[in-house]
Amino acid sequence: VVDGLGGLGHPDFDFISELEYAKTPNLDKFVSLRTTEVGLLYPVNRGITPGSGPGHLGLFGYDPLKPKYTIGRGALEAAGLEFTLRPNDLIFRMNFSQIGSDGILVDRRAGRISSQEGARLSEKLNKAISLRGAEAIVVPSRDYRASLILRTNQALSDQVRDTDPQREGFRPESCLPIDSRDPGARRTADLVNSFVEQAAKILSDEPKANMVLLRGASRLPNIPRFGQIYGLQAAASAIYPLYRGIARLVGMDVLNGATNLAEQIAQVKTHFDDYTFFFVHFKDADSAGEDGDFLRKVKAIEYVDQQFPSILEIGFDVIAITGDHSTPSLLRGHSWHSVPLAVSGPYIRRDDATRLTEYECAKGGLGRLRTHELMNVLMANAGKLKKFGA
Amino acid sequence: VVDGLGGLGHPDFDFISELEYAKTPNLDKFVSLRTTEVGLLYPVNRGITPGSGPGHLGLFGYDPLKPKYTIGRGALEAAGLEFTLRPNDLIFRMNFSQIGSDGILVDRRAGRISSQEGARLSEKLNKAISLRGAEAIVVPSRDYRASLILRTNQALSDQVRDTDPQREGFRPESCLPIDSRDPGARRTADLVNSFVEQAAKILSDEPKANMVLLRGASRLPNIPRFGQIYGLQAAASAIYPLYRGIARLVGMDVLNGATNLAEQIAQVKTHFDDYTFFFVHFKDADSAGEDGDFLRKVKAIEYVDQQFPSILEIGFDVIAITGDHSTPSLLRGHSWHSVPLAVSGPYIRRDDATRLTEYECAKGGLGRLRTHELMNVLMANAGKLKKFGA
Repeated sequence: VVDGLGGLGHPDFDFISELEYAKTPNLDKFVSLRTTEVGLLYPVNRGITPGSGPGHLGLFGYDPLKPKYTIGRGALEAAGLEFTLRPNDLIFRMNFSQIGSDGILVDRRAGRISSQEGARLSEKLNKAISLRGAEAIVVPSRDYRASLILRTNQALSDQVRDTDPQREGFRPESCLPIDSRDPGARRTADLVNSFVEQAAKILSDEPKANMVLLRGASRLPNIPRFGQIYGLQAAASAIYPLYRGIARLVGMDVLNGATNLAEQIAQVKTHFDDYTFFFVHFKDADSAGEDGDFLRKVKAIEYVDQQFPSILEIGFDVIAITGDHSTPSLLRGHSWHSVPLAVSGPYIRRDDATRLTEYECAKGGLGRLRTHELMNVLMANAGKLKKFGA
Repeated sequence: VVDGLGGLGHPDFDFISELEYAKTPNLDKFVSLRTTEVGLLYPVNRGITPGSGPGHLGLFGYDPLKPKYTIGRGALEAAGLEFTLRPNDLIFRMNFSQIGSDGILVDRRAGRISSQEGARLSEKLNKAISLRGAEAIVVPSRDYRASLILRTNQALSDQVRDTDPQREGFRPESCLPIDSRDPGARRTADLVNSFVEQAAKILSDEPKANMVLLRGASRLPNIPRFGQIYGLQAAASAIYPLYRGIARLVGMDVLNGATNLAEQIAQVKTHFDDYTFFFVHFKDADSAGEDGDFLRKVKAIEYVDQQFPSILEIGFDVIAITGDHSTPSLLRGHSWHSVPLAVSGPYIRRDDATRLTEYECAKGGLGRLRTHELMNVLMANAGKLKKFGA
């Protein structure tokens, strides 16, 4: 999965796309094989720009339009922490922040304190806070960011409002139930307010980070396990926390230790006999696209191309290369455009494609699929699906 | 929207289609742009020939297969009258007709009386008819055609049978409830029969139009407003009543005064700053197709081509040209064939198309969409959609 793989013709580069501009001899050769077919994926649906959550859920075979597969932002972020969530956990996104002596918010980001500082403050809170009938766990993320996990025996409600007023010059708000008659939401709001009150006291001697702001209450989605659905032993090789988290949410084993794509591929090779499915995530194409850096995206693609032969060597039966969404550098962000896809396997029909580009994939033998349909194609090509009906 | 845009290769013209036969230098240039992509639309679904109602609802983003978006023929016709319907109105299509002294139907169309005559008779009925607990409003249409609107405080039922026997030599039927145990339908049928009885008396001195026939009882569909769904200020420029009516049903403002496409485009230009979406409807391609007149359809297309540069000049961010359905002159009617589509916008991927023809659109970069998906594509290209999920 080359994050943000698809692009768009760019006026500064004669209206050709990043994939067209890139020199990709290995991908070209792969795509030209008689046993490789190309096509286009629509991650959510026509015209819809997907976030990373729905983009990856689709790749794993879950229709992101089904409400039951919606992952709240809080759950998504927390899933990206190296921290094992439990089904009943209620998760908030948390900022360390600064208030004045009058209680008015001075800095929502507490002067952008360091990750080290964030870790120290999280530890400080975790040691001192004590809630009635619930455990509060602060897990630091980057800089001033953290997650708060409220853990109880009984499920808490996510139907509570943020305490983050989203703007400086205002007072942090009390946590309120969205519906004041909802007993579960009231109980949750009471717990949250008790947490914030204690946190403010504990942090009162801090020069910058003397307050916490909470937003995006969410519970873990109850997503059926990928491995169970498909009868696969699945492993994920991803470097960025968010993608490790999504893989963990669907029940994949997440491999540790790699710091670049070459090491990821080596990692997959090492574990090849332990699993029957590998998800390998590569981030840099998306990052470059988001920065609007056409040539850096080209370079990221060319790096993938250089590494690609090592993937082929491992000995997979079926290989797909695609993205979770397009990130054209022209748009400096995710986009609604379809995503190039190539699939190889012993029972693939031939097509005319010679390059993995938007233009060639639009004419490819695989046609156009909604992303969540791809898993069935891969499973079929791996000989892992039975006949439907008699 | 070029009504009935798609066609079919015709044996009298070397098996090429109307779009292929037509000289369309302006459309060719437009389609050849790097920022224009073509594709094919399926208005309802594969193999399904759409009526004008579903064809246009699809273009406006409503899936015509959802029962809640079904518009009854009576409601469709009445919506095309310049008459403001209310949510509870029950609408019938009405014919002025002629019966003999024995009550047997002699002419379902009352000798095709003039529109002027129809208006006079409608007025005559409206003045004299008095129903218990309901208002009856006859709105004349063309020639012998009219709509009957029954207006009450309580909603009436559309579950009643026609009084129109559909054939001469038979007696007009009484209006009967479809289910005789349904009290709402019985009450409605009683009102209808009372209306017909009074109308027959009032018209008894007329030489031709001495009876009325009613069919197609329908209520207004409760369709969410187009402008609200998409956050657009939407205007419709259409000449024919039916298309003005459909636009009005979905809540568009309908512009007045234009009598041909050149005037419609001028009208759009005048109102350009007042709206963020324009639906421009052009009928003649469909009419020619329905008459089986290949060359007249070609001419209609060439006329659109001549006017097209004036549309480009106005300054739209996103332009789509397509049809509500195909009307091949070979078939003399609407057909199930897909409909050529071209979309231009600043973030469109390139494809190979150089002409807006069925053949080239089948290979276009936009691929194949169900018509109701098009609005999302246009909205995305206009930068009007947010990201889906985190």
